[in-house]
Amino acid sequence: MSACEFESLEECLRSHLPAAELSEVSRILYGRETTKLELPACAVDAASERDFELKGYGFEAALEQLRPARRIRVGLIQHRIVLPTDAPILDQINAMHSRVGEMVEVAAMCGVNIICFQETWTMPFAFCTREKEPWTEFAESAEEGNTTRFCQELAKKYNMVVISPILEREELHNTIWNTAVVISNSGTVLGKSRKHHIPRIGDFNESTYYMEGDTGHTVFQTQFGKIAVNICYGRHHPLNWFMYSMNGAEIIFNPSATVGALSEPMWPIEATLSSESFKSEFTSGDGKKAHHDFGHFYGSSYVAAPDGSRCPGLSRTRDGLLVVEMDLNLNRQISDKWSFKMTGRYAEYAEELTKAVRHDFKPNIVKE
Amino acid sequence: MSACEFESLEECLRSHLPAAELSEVSRILYGRETTKLELPACAVDAASERDFELKGYGFEAALEQLRPARRIRVGLIQHRIVLPTDAPILDQINAMHSRVGEMVEVAAMCGVNIICFQETWTMPFAFCTREKEPWTEFAESAEEGNTTRFCQELAKKYNMVVISPILEREELHNTIWNTAVVISNSGTVLGKSRKHHIPRIGDFNESTYYMEGDTGHTVFQTQFGKIAVNICYGRHHPLNWFMYSMNGAEIIFNPSATVGALSEPMWPIEATLSSESFKSEFTSGDGKKAHHDFGHFYGSSYVAAPDGSRCPGLSRTRDGLLVVEMDLNLNRQISDKWSFKMTGRYAEYAEELTKAVRHDFKPNIVKE
Repeated sequence: MSACEFESLEECLRSHLPAAELSEVSRILYGRETTKLELPACAVDAASERDFELKGYGFEAALEQLRPARRIRVGLIQHRIVLPTDAPILDQINAMHSRVGEMVEVAAMCGVNIICFQETWTMPFAFCTREKEPWTEFAESAEEGNTTRFCQELAKKYNMVVISPILEREELHNTIWNTAVVISNSGTVLGKSRKHHIPRIGDFNESTYYMEGDTGHTVFQTQFGKIAVNICYGRHHPLNWFMYSMNGAEIIFNPSATVGALSEPMWPIEATLSSESFKSEFTSGDGKKAHHDFGHFYGSSYVAAPDGSRCPGLSRTRDGLLVVEMDLNLNRQISDKWSFKMTGRYAEYAEELTKAVRHDFKPNIVKE
Repeated sequence: MSACEFESLEECLRSHLPAAELSEVSRILYGRETTKLELPACAVDAASERDFELKGYGFEAALEQLRPARRIRVGLIQHRIVLPTDAPILDQINAMHSRVGEMVEVAAMCGVNIICFQETWTMPFAFCTREKEPWTEFAESAEEGNTTRFCQELAKKYNMVVISPILEREELHNTIWNTAVVISNSGTVLGKSRKHHIPRIGDFNESTYYMEGDTGHTVFQTQFGKIAVNICYGRHHPLNWFMYSMNGAEIIFNPSATVGALSEPMWPIEATLSSESFKSEFTSGDGKKAHHDFGHFYGSSYVAAPDGSRCPGLSRTRDGLLVVEMDLNLNRQISDKWSFKMTGRYAEYAEELTKAVRHDFKPNIVKE
């Protein structure tokens, strides 16, 4: 069996383990069980007709006496490219708009409040080719590009916050960035979050195309909660998740494009550790080899709760929409339970880290 | 099936999954495959006679041209208590010395260079009882206590670095600490590392007994490598792993005592994320309910490599010794491959964190 044929970890476990063992394995791998979400028949039918996977899960929180529940629904979309990578650029972009548009329509049927697309979703993830052309031509203005206008229409039409990660061209300086545009459900561009850490590994030296983001750890206050976007490789840097959380993020999205041989063993777990926020990880699903054969993009989008529990992932090989209902009250409940922020000794870490980055830093090493 | 009967995740997967699927599942859950270590027959026989599990794995590193391989063997011991918790204290301690002593002898047969015992290994993990007596009577001097002397003898006899996590009494101030004593293979006490983060969760408010450690992120330079000890709950704080690594640790040990309902879903993964050091997590194995029925201590000791791959865990229910061979050159190789420290933007995080802990901190939140 090749990695490209393997449907998903969850599917494999479900079809081979006896019920009692499956329950223990799921508890250890995924924590507290998520509930299955009942999705409307029209959505299920549309997903089937349009040939993409549709899954729904819910994270429960306790009812509180003084705060009403803050139940919202988040949608994550993973998809392969639509046209071949040598088709005219505008055709490629339009085909992707059209594909994602029909998936967002289904998300709307499912009552999704915030939707997030995959990393640089309007184009093939070509950043390991080292070719500047034609890839840089896919770059658009974050504020006024066609793709942003397209997302603003979706946002208004469906009353949905849209996170649209694109290749951004900043016209003024002719700089290119890997940027998530955050669009309010009113259709207003709330702002943008640029990829904070840039990989230099294997085929992926993306600094050929764009450099480390300069937008810091911005959090966006939306009608449905405070959200942040930690793009791709930033998920390997625990401090990155942490600083979004310190700035008040209730949900941190992690749109990623990455391949199996490189990062798949880290994928199922990186969003599950302790930052006391909900975290959504997802990558593009692509059963076929990419155009320059740089490996299998493994889909597997999932959502993790602040207690480290997580829902099953989408398929490793198919387009898909994951709908997750969460009660944002869970963040504070887990915070009260585990007290990570209170036991974190952050003032001391601030001092230690400040010393550790100086050239005259003396590591604390004891010798005999 | 109850959580106490479930032997281990790895055993369950191995016995139910077809070979091709098992290989994919293992790749996703554990990363690059570890090799099985050939252990001497005398050690295998002794472990069997003495009724504990013995497993050995190896992490491979590439051969380099300019540095010789730095292959060493690490041993982790997990065990239940020996005598009932109401037996005379000295008898309990001596029985534990004797049990661990016979396990260390087997570790020596296996060529172990550095051995680590479990958290407060000489006593029942009673810190959820809130009773001061008789538990505080188990506390000993880190420098001159019986247990340290016992470990110094082991260290000299077997030419082994011994990490001995105990309940420490500092005579001068009559303060109690949760402390790992690090003893050189020469028998010298190199120093100590006190538990840096103290839980206040569920039954475990350990600050009833001891407070946050004051030894910072000390790293110990031994003949076999630079090591650090991150005790128990500190594993939930990514900054804690990180600062040991920033101080040069090549292996970070995480002796832990924790129960299934609380933390088991986090356990298999916490040591696997990106600090570019080897990390060893382990807890006490105890198939029986603890004396006040506060849950199942789930063993499951394992070692993770700096690339996030990890070896299978020991049993959830049996005493055990895990022997892991590692080439410490892998740390720098993975560092060169992934460049986490170079792409980490730590100077900026030092500034951000310094601001974030101030009372006048204004989080970076964008509103419509």
